[in-house]
Amino acid sequence: MDRTQLHAILDEALIAHVGFTASHGPVVLPMTYARIDDALYLHGAIGNDLLRHAADGVDVCATVTLLDGLVLARSAFHHSMNYRCAVVFGRAERVTDPAELRAMSVALVDHLSPGRSAEARPPTAEELRATLAIRLSLDEASVKVRTGGPVDDAEDLALPVWAGVIPTELRRGEPIADPGS
Amino acid sequence: MDRTQLHAILDEALIAHVGFTASHGPVVLPMTYARIDDALYLHGAIGNDLLRHAADGVDVCATVTLLDGLVLARSAFHHSMNYRCAVVFGRAERVTDPAELRAMSVALVDHLSPGRSAEARPPTAEELRATLAIRLSLDEASVKVRTGGPVDDAEDLALPVWAGVIPTELRRGEPIADPGS
Repeated sequence: MDRTQLHAILDEALIAHVGFTASHGPVVLPMTYARIDDALYLHGAIGNDLLRHAADGVDVCATVTLLDGLVLARSAFHHSMNYRCAVVFGRAERVTDPAELRAMSVALVDHLSPGRSAEARPPTAEELRATLAIRLSLDEASVKVRTGGPVDDAEDLALPVWAGVIPTELRRGEPIADPGS
Repeated sequence: MDRTQLHAILDEALIAHVGFTASHGPVVLPMTYARIDDALYLHGAIGNDLLRHAADGVDVCATVTLLDGLVLARSAFHHSMNYRCAVVFGRAERVTDPAELRAMSVALVDHLSPGRSAEARPPTAEELRATLAIRLSLDEASVKVRTGGPVDDAEDLALPVWAGVIPTELRRGEPIADPGS
């Protein structure tokens, strides 16, 4: 596992899909997150079901995927996608230490928009107490990457079908100010 | 659950994060997919671990998330994201019927690029036999959506901090032709 690449994927993407096993079966929820050194901090109202269980030390899998391109081959069979994906396994631990929660808040806000934590009002002690967050070590993680063009069968290369890659990227548009801002 | 909205999210997004419970714990893998009526067809080399178990009728959760914007509030605490998310629960069933696999191939290719299935070489019988695919009913699904600007506390509204939404969108770039295409 290439730790530099793992960090790069986690730092570039914005949403983790976090899976855990609930009483009725597997559940996967999107969560915001931030990386600090070799820990992933997961956070989000959407993930409350998970966060409520996390105090018990529940096994989770957090997967982060960047879609880099659509790979159009000459044959339907060889169509594919270019992507970079990080998969992190581990036991989720609820974060309760105020200093750690404060560091997490900084990392979360800067992950959305670099430098933002220096501008926004920092969390109060009350807000920190209301924050549900879990920490996941990056010790058990893997990275998968696909790059490049389509891999067609030799006998398909002469087909009169356009083949190639359509690059994809998450783009940020023009900021929309909140009224009164 | 709004079925029109569920369909719209599944048709717009390109990757599902599919969770299942392996012997060592929960696993979440990104997979390509296509929707046909009220079924989700999941497919992908990355998901082989899952697909190999799917013949046994394994419980899965397939989650699809579209990130629509970064919500920057005046306080760190109220930072958020705008998103549309579909969560589908069910028992994965391995697809083996050639006609259904053929229909799935069409849907998968057209999902990547509308109309593409009419151009690409269709799958051979041998390729269909080599295709690992699972079907998931949309009967048990939920949709979650966040839209709009930040929701700051009243006492923070006068802070000299820019607040608003940075829209985000997966954009397709200029196609890159494969050599020989």
